[in-house]
Amino acid sequence: MNEFELIARLTHSLPSGKSVVVGAGDDCAVLDVGLPDRLLLFKTDAVVEGIHFRAADPPEQIGHKALARCLSDIAAMAGAPDAAVITLALPRSFEPGAIERLYDGMSALARRHEVSIVGGETTTNPGGMLISVAVLGHVPRGKAVLRSGAEAGDAIWVTGNLGGSLFSGKHLDFEPRLAEARWLARHFGIHAMIDVSDGLAGDLRHVLKASRVGAELLAASIPISRAAREASRARLHGSAARPVPADGPVKSPLQAALTDGEDFELLFTAAARDAVPLLDAWKKEFPGTPLTCIGKITAGEGIHLRDREGIRPLTAHGYEHFS
Amino acid sequence: MNEFELIARLTHSLPSGKSVVVGAGDDCAVLDVGLPDRLLLFKTDAVVEGIHFRAADPPEQIGHKALARCLSDIAAMAGAPDAAVITLALPRSFEPGAIERLYDGMSALARRHEVSIVGGETTTNPGGMLISVAVLGHVPRGKAVLRSGAEAGDAIWVTGNLGGSLFSGKHLDFEPRLAEARWLARHFGIHAMIDVSDGLAGDLRHVLKASRVGAELLAASIPISRAAREASRARLHGSAARPVPADGPVKSPLQAALTDGEDFELLFTAAARDAVPLLDAWKKEFPGTPLTCIGKITAGEGIHLRDREGIRPLTAHGYEHFS
Repeated sequence: MNEFELIARLTHSLPSGKSVVVGAGDDCAVLDVGLPDRLLLFKTDAVVEGIHFRAADPPEQIGHKALARCLSDIAAMAGAPDAAVITLALPRSFEPGAIERLYDGMSALARRHEVSIVGGETTTNPGGMLISVAVLGHVPRGKAVLRSGAEAGDAIWVTGNLGGSLFSGKHLDFEPRLAEARWLARHFGIHAMIDVSDGLAGDLRHVLKASRVGAELLAASIPISRAAREASRARLHGSAARPVPADGPVKSPLQAALTDGEDFELLFTAAARDAVPLLDAWKKEFPGTPLTCIGKITAGEGIHLRDREGIRPLTAHGYEHFS
Repeated sequence: MNEFELIARLTHSLPSGKSVVVGAGDDCAVLDVGLPDRLLLFKTDAVVEGIHFRAADPPEQIGHKALARCLSDIAAMAGAPDAAVITLALPRSFEPGAIERLYDGMSALARRHEVSIVGGETTTNPGGMLISVAVLGHVPRGKAVLRSGAEAGDAIWVTGNLGGSLFSGKHLDFEPRLAEARWLARHFGIHAMIDVSDGLAGDLRHVLKASRVGAELLAASIPISRAAREASRARLHGSAARPVPADGPVKSPLQAALTDGEDFELLFTAAARDAVPLLDAWKKEFPGTPLTCIGKITAGEGIHLRDREGIRPLTAHGYEHFS
């Protein structure tokens, strides 16, 4: 049983009241608490030593990542974050100075995005450090972008370049795409959105499943990061400055861009007719950030990849925590 | 550095915006999101295998406890819970059936208190199971009961009987006192309230510190639980059906009632003139649940205990996670 199967099994019959607009299964829960102009967003996430970060990583970056992952989920709904609560589970022996640096990294990110940190619990976790974050945010009523809105014919877009995030360290210092997501939802009809945490293919599958559609990707259009190319080379030549996980498969740069996790870019779909104005406006608003159309939504099922040799189903999954 | 010192150090300069009515440091954060009639409550907490529960405990009770602790914090503000998100951090090998039972225990409690569970994440925690819960609730505007409102002359009250919770198993199956706390705040002027999680003395100290007052307790009035007496006897005679922690001090029943953690009863203060009507009304409303006046708030500092031998300062702390 992998992570996604377990979650599906656990969450199929959770208690749910009438204030729940969207429950478990999207990037955030959406709650209607009676505010006339907006809905609340609610999300939790955790990072674990040895899995999402290494004990030797800079504490500021560990704290940054713990909060940034949750903010990226708020971004994926086109929302704005308001408040966060933190649980720090620490090994029996720890360095108070390192914990302060961790909170410094988290606080700096919180200030940039006007997030109040309103609770900080600590407990002991004998196996190593674990940081759990819960974030409360909001989205204008009617403006939450779900995973379930993709329509056949939509163009599929992704921000940034993909792959090699663990290799380059991007997974520790990425800036959640909150401003970009809100701008997109304000100016264009974004049909579906998710953040790329499990890998492009894996996260696109979540959108396709929720929307009951398929996708055709153009291999030549996938924006492959320099880190994905370097990681691939390093793995082949054994010269990585930072080690590629020893048990990881040797991936081509394209495979890395399709299946590496933790890029935290936005993956979204919009009507094909919006493609040209969307790209033009984006380039003016966010000139430093790539935005790429990587394919289209189809009436079919699953992901197909088109390259010079033709079209074939994409079977590679994204990263799964329990695979 | 103990847990409370670390928390104090970490939370003294957290980012805070104008919607924050109460930030870190009370039982819950209090947020003003613009609802005319109420404020939101926000809280996170975690339970860890080997610390808050044992791997052999019934999974339903582990799930129950994980959520019940957070609900007890909502109760301590006289609030009502609305929604919860869960992070389940699991060892590399786990039994899916046990995880379903854990969720069953959590869901049953959630249904009883009309809490929607709107997010369920899983991740790996190599050292053992950890369950982090965040809860969103609400309280009528102006009705949140803080730790900081105790006044010299107030009577100090506690629900239930205290001590021996780990021995009796109460820490795994207690019902959070949500109804009792809301009833108290609706019918009487409750000045300050907290739930007894760290132990009566430790939690009373939190109230005293926040309110800048002292307290005098009457030793003969402390409601000592049967479990506290049994645990004390078992420790002395070595005949416990359930083992007392091997490294724990030998406590008298009174010491156990004063310092054992995890009773999750309500500890609150109210004007002395309300004492008789409060107790009369309570007995009618909650005939099965003891309510005891255990002393009074003073203009001094710290806790003093009065018994047959006179009055002396109470130096024993409650349970501290990093002591």
